[in-house]
Amino acid sequence: MGKLPLHMAKNGENLVEFNRKIIEATLPFSAAYKINTAFYEQYGSKGWAWMEETLAHIPDSVFSIADAKRGDIGNTSTMYARAFFDTLNFDAVTVAPYMGEDSLRPFLEFENKWIICLALTSNPGHADFQKLNTETEKKLYETVIETVCKWGNPDNLMFVVGATRAEDIGHVRSLIPDHFLLVPGVGAQGGSLSEVSKYGLNNDCGLLVNSSRGIIYASNGEDYAEAAATEANKLQKEMAVLMGNNVT
Amino acid sequence: MGKLPLHMAKNGENLVEFNRKIIEATLPFSAAYKINTAFYEQYGSKGWAWMEETLAHIPDSVFSIADAKRGDIGNTSTMYARAFFDTLNFDAVTVAPYMGEDSLRPFLEFENKWIICLALTSNPGHADFQKLNTETEKKLYETVIETVCKWGNPDNLMFVVGATRAEDIGHVRSLIPDHFLLVPGVGAQGGSLSEVSKYGLNNDCGLLVNSSRGIIYASNGEDYAEAAATEANKLQKEMAVLMGNNVT
Repeated sequence: MGKLPLHMAKNGENLVEFNRKIIEATLPFSAAYKINTAFYEQYGSKGWAWMEETLAHIPDSVFSIADAKRGDIGNTSTMYARAFFDTLNFDAVTVAPYMGEDSLRPFLEFENKWIICLALTSNPGHADFQKLNTETEKKLYETVIETVCKWGNPDNLMFVVGATRAEDIGHVRSLIPDHFLLVPGVGAQGGSLSEVSKYGLNNDCGLLVNSSRGIIYASNGEDYAEAAATEANKLQKEMAVLMGNNVT
Repeated sequence: MGKLPLHMAKNGENLVEFNRKIIEATLPFSAAYKINTAFYEQYGSKGWAWMEETLAHIPDSVFSIADAKRGDIGNTSTMYARAFFDTLNFDAVTVAPYMGEDSLRPFLEFENKWIICLALTSNPGHADFQKLNTETEKKLYETVIETVCKWGNPDNLMFVVGATRAEDIGHVRSLIPDHFLLVPGVGAQGGSLSEVSKYGLNNDCGLLVNSSRGIIYASNGEDYAEAAATEANKLQKEMAVLMGNNVT
């Protein structure tokens, strides 16, 4: 099970218990939980059951994101939307835009749910296609943002914009002042929270900053939950300061 | 359960039984089976278990495709590859190219497995991004094909090219004479097998032509398996004739 503490890595019961302790410890400092579906899917149906059990430990009051990068023709995207919005009751799901309008519309038809569309990602391969210049005299990721904004609105549509190049976040913010951005890449991937905030904050905050490995693997000992809470608390305080609030 | 015959639509046991009968009836006429993961995922972990049970009815000798459209940063794509290649033991999985090289490489590291990369899809939204002209003086889908071909070869990489515009298949074939194409859209989506063959065949055949709804919903009565076999047999004979073989 990769980097889970060794004493936790024996079976799914342990995995769910690990998650439960992380969730309980970090709840005071968390705006949202993002579950990466692949890490459960690697175990097949058992893994999906562990994902469902993990979700049951996230209070309904906290925003939950399925990081699933789904997207297919219309009738198939409807099934994916049912999976994540109805069956698993996530608040949001990440989606891939390559197949265009009818691949995203079915997700947008669910009330009080969100899609988070890939725009400019933080991985090395982001430049292969996302930064290609297109006939619109914009790069592909800019065209994706502009086009997908016609199908949704700031109340049901966010975009993924990686944290590793803060100036790109500033540019995206200038294109879409009102949409929330999901920003992965802070922590293990090298992004800086202060840079992200400087370029990405708007009047509603407008940022969901994601730290995964930096929190859940803060310690690989028995104290992993306490260490996760400490790390989450630290990030939450930094964020509050950057937003101009006082936190004690 | 959508279009499954009413008497089959009660529970997962019935769904797997439906699949088993379709597989057994169509086996003599099938080059491959493609499972659309979304249709199982909509039922959560139970659905994933039904997908696993369905897979157990597909003989190892027949090519199996997870139509899952996955793709994420490198360490996450590794998990997806494990899910479909190791845990579920599919031969191939469809992948989405938007996140670039490190999102596809992990799949290509598995021996005797295939990725089938989205290139030019058959749905209405295909034109939103795939047909944009880019700085390479090629359309995005052409750039995707050209670039992804640098990461794989005809023995581990195929492309999805929709059947609904046969002239596009001819163009793709001119770009990649040796790669197999997975061609959805024949049947319910309106694509013509003879047109697809005319433009897409190569010396190794080079085509996996997919008919889903046209076969599994050939009848909505108790005779669904026989009707599926008849439809699959018809398509297989047509294909054989188009390939220049004689079939009785």
